[in-house]
Amino acid sequence: MAEKPPSSPDPAPGPGPVERPGPDASRRSERSRRAIYAAALALVGETGYPKTTIEGIAARAGVGKQTIYRWWPSKADVLLDAFTDLGERTARAAGQEPYTLPDTGDLAADLKLVLRATVDELLDPAFEVPARALAAEGLVNDRLGAEFVARLLEPQLRLYVRRLRSAQEHGGIRPEIDPRIALELFVSPLAQRWLQRTAPITYDYTDTLVDYALYGLAPR
Amino acid sequence: MAEKPPSSPDPAPGPGPVERPGPDASRRSERSRRAIYAAALALVGETGYPKTTIEGIAARAGVGKQTIYRWWPSKADVLLDAFTDLGERTARAAGQEPYTLPDTGDLAADLKLVLRATVDELLDPAFEVPARALAAEGLVNDRLGAEFVARLLEPQLRLYVRRLRSAQEHGGIRPEIDPRIALELFVSPLAQRWLQRTAPITYDYTDTLVDYALYGLAPR
Repeated sequence: MAEKPPSSPDPAPGPGPVERPGPDASRRSERSRRAIYAAALALVGETGYPKTTIEGIAARAGVGKQTIYRWWPSKADVLLDAFTDLGERTARAAGQEPYTLPDTGDLAADLKLVLRATVDELLDPAFEVPARALAAEGLVNDRLGAEFVARLLEPQLRLYVRRLRSAQEHGGIRPEIDPRIALELFVSPLAQRWLQRTAPITYDYTDTLVDYALYGLAPR
Repeated sequence: MAEKPPSSPDPAPGPGPVERPGPDASRRSERSRRAIYAAALALVGETGYPKTTIEGIAARAGVGKQTIYRWWPSKADVLLDAFTDLGERTARAAGQEPYTLPDTGDLAADLKLVLRATVDELLDPAFEVPARALAAEGLVNDRLGAEFVARLLEPQLRLYVRRLRSAQEHGGIRPEIDPRIALELFVSPLAQRWLQRTAPITYDYTDTLVDYALYGLAPR
């Protein structure tokens, strides 16, 4: 993995000493990094992922292409960082911590609320286009796929695990249920409809998933 | 869509008159088609989808590349037909109709059996490699994605709909449940684990999905 710009969101620093630039160089790096993220997201949105190139990103960001290659090994890695950063900025702008999930005591209501927000996000082109490009690349590029899952998907799934455990403590979920599998009953159907466009995604649909998962398909 | 070879499995013939070759030409076409399918599947398995080309498939199949372009507009379309044909031949070799699902009256047992067979298939490289390549291409290529879903995914999902309707008639599934959504509670988690490699897929896992979906996560 190439060395990252100083304030990269990557939580796992690579091996070896990191060159620490002075304050001015650091500000310049931060400006370049922002410009590169914005250029990558804009180009993927306008021309699609296959036609987006490192050269195109560099030209639009007003940096040399070596600046990009110094920090990222491929356009997929630039886009993954840009997309992670977009998610964090959007959450902060909405006054939320990037990774939180409500716990009002009403499990069904909390899950429905979060899944409705996910529907909104999946239907917003600013998220949809780069997320789809990264997901598609991840299916055939094992390293990128593992990073996509570890950095973007699993942190969200862990929130559902925590919420389901809290429900287990309060008797809303059977004690023998494995929360890591249970969450897939409502998260994976939405993911598959979105990824493979098998059917529309709506609030009604995600509400229904929550009800079916909690109360089961068999008569009670 | 390019004109298909005479015995192509495509169930929907294109518009316009189809040129009917005589018996000898038909045998030659059939031989070429088989060779092209085998070459496409072999190359994707050996070198991966991105490095597979129409030229490579033609050379390995011993046909001219114009023969391929006459029948298919792209390598993705060749692979989609080759993969559909593989599935049908494998089912026939196992003595099954290509699209059937058991109905013994024990819904949980029937679903577990079918999902275990799906796990076997998803872990078999002969299916896994072309299926993943097609799924990945389908995420970013709308036309191919729609064909992949319509020809390979939806026919299987319709079997689950039929099986769940039969269970509804016998009281095993609540009458107000929508079977098209209900099936996603066990099909989509397996699909997402397989596609995005988020976690291992095992018989235990798919058995658990069926139990959770049927009996729900909340206490009974």
